Amino acid sequence: MNETLKTIYNRKSVRVFEDKEIAGEIKTHIIKSAMRAPTAGNMMLYTIIEVAEQSAKETLAETCDNQPFIAKSPFVLLFLADYQRWYDYYIASGVPELCGKNNMEMRKPGEGDLFLACCDALIAAQNAVIAAESLGLGSCYIGDIMENYEAHKELFGLPRYTFPIAMVCFGYPTEQQVKREQPNRFDERFIVFKDKYKSLSLYDFEEMFKEMDEKGSKSFIGGAENSGQHNYLRKFSADFSIEMTRSVREILKNWK
Amino acid sequence: MNETLKTIYNRKSVRVFEDKEIAGEIKTHIIKSAMRAPTAGNMMLYTIIEVAEQSAKETLAETCDNQPFIAKSPFVLLFLADYQRWYDYYIASGVPELCGKNNMEMRKPGEGDLFLACCDALIAAQNAVIAAESLGLGSCYIGDIMENYEAHKELFGLPRYTFPIAMVCFGYPTEQQVKREQPNRFDERFIVFKDKYKSLSLYDFEEMFKEMDEKGSKSFIGGAENSGQHNYLRKFSADFSIEMTRSVREILKNWK
Repeated sequence: MNETLKTIYNRKSVRVFEDKEIAGEIKTHIIKSAMRAPTAGNMMLYTIIEVAEQSAKETLAETCDNQPFIAKSPFVLLFLADYQRWYDYYIASGVPELCGKNNMEMRKPGEGDLFLACCDALIAAQNAVIAAESLGLGSCYIGDIMENYEAHKELFGLPRYTFPIAMVCFGYPTEQQVKREQPNRFDERFIVFKDKYKSLSLYDFEEMFKEMDEKGSKSFIGGAENSGQHNYLRKFSADFSIEMTRSVREILKNWK
Repeated sequence: MNETLKTIYNRKSVRVFEDKEIAGEIKTHIIKSAMRAPTAGNMMLYTIIEVAEQSAKETLAETCDNQPFIAKSPFVLLFLADYQRWYDYYIASGVPELCGKNNMEMRKPGEGDLFLACCDALIAAQNAVIAAESLGLGSCYIGDIMENYEAHKELFGLPRYTFPIAMVCFGYPTEQQVKREQPNRFDERFIVFKDKYKSLSLYDFEEMFKEMDEKGSKSFIGGAENSGQHNYLRKFSADFSIEMTRSVREILKNWK
């Protein structure tokens, strides 16, 4: 097996970091890897913000569903889906005048453009994550960066046509994190289909969640009787999920 | 430099494939790499559909902005953001009854859940792309899979809480593709900022697009006088962009 596959297969998220700086050269590889990622029409529809200020990390540790380890990460990158830069460039390039001359209304970024920009940003983020892994660094995605839009907008000065789609914390894993067992994934037969989408049957779900039902039954919360009820209470109906949808709805208004 | 970084740095998109099958073992590595990608709460909020039927590839070659090479790819993977599986599982697990007992209304997937699932799907897709690259395969993202939702919904039997966020065509690159020059990216100073978003100035834009303005001036379309006007006409106001936003709006209705 080649080194890249080994890197991919062995990765697991790391949420406890050694108190150790990351060398400039390593950071450069991570950023350059992100920037080499495939991008729609070579437009690079994203912006990367390095969160260097400690106070900002501490704010994020709270606004991103209270995860204190964010403040302890020596290297935090925010990935924005970004059409603002191109929109500004169109204006600067005289597109409004061109449209006026041709009796056309100038388009503004819409929902399709937003999702395309999210693709660019996330593909770049995952290149950064794999590059970091190959260099001995651990990482963890913070999906919660989509929450509390108003606070993050102010913190980073986000203009209208941007969307904070992912944040990644990097750092050297502690010994305990290195030894932590890699979580299992669901079996391929529940995730990968041929030619058509397949809805799972009750029997499929029993098989799919067998291990979780057995392992987890002692820690089910709120009177949950199985993994499905537990996950619903723990994740899907939790405050952070509700906040994420509220916050994303707020951002979406900018793109309409 | 390690092998993984080399793989990342040397990649470029490939749109012309050798007429050569991909061995099952190689496909397995690509799928397994996707499935090892980080995923929010280990929920795997995505589904991968291998598009194996030739007739489906031919349809996609038309519905995805008329790109005939799609039909010639020996391995095509569709990445769906997918909350349908979990929603079905909640129902199957008696969550409606649990909610009834506790006088709570059962949540349905919303916009935040959609974006989180898109993260999962895209992160998995990029793992597949890098794994393929490390095995000597080329690949190309088809962002246009977000267009023509109605046709793709029927083609793949997509249920409500899914979103076709990315498609990737894989194949062995032809000699000409191997030799093709890797396109430049914009300079880091226009893409990567520290702590705050930075709006670019007119001077920045001049610097950023200098090469494009010089190289491209002979091929500007529709009376465009610079790269900004050209890109606006060629990409941003092109039929596929307008269709993408129409189609995405249609999908978004499912998540509201």
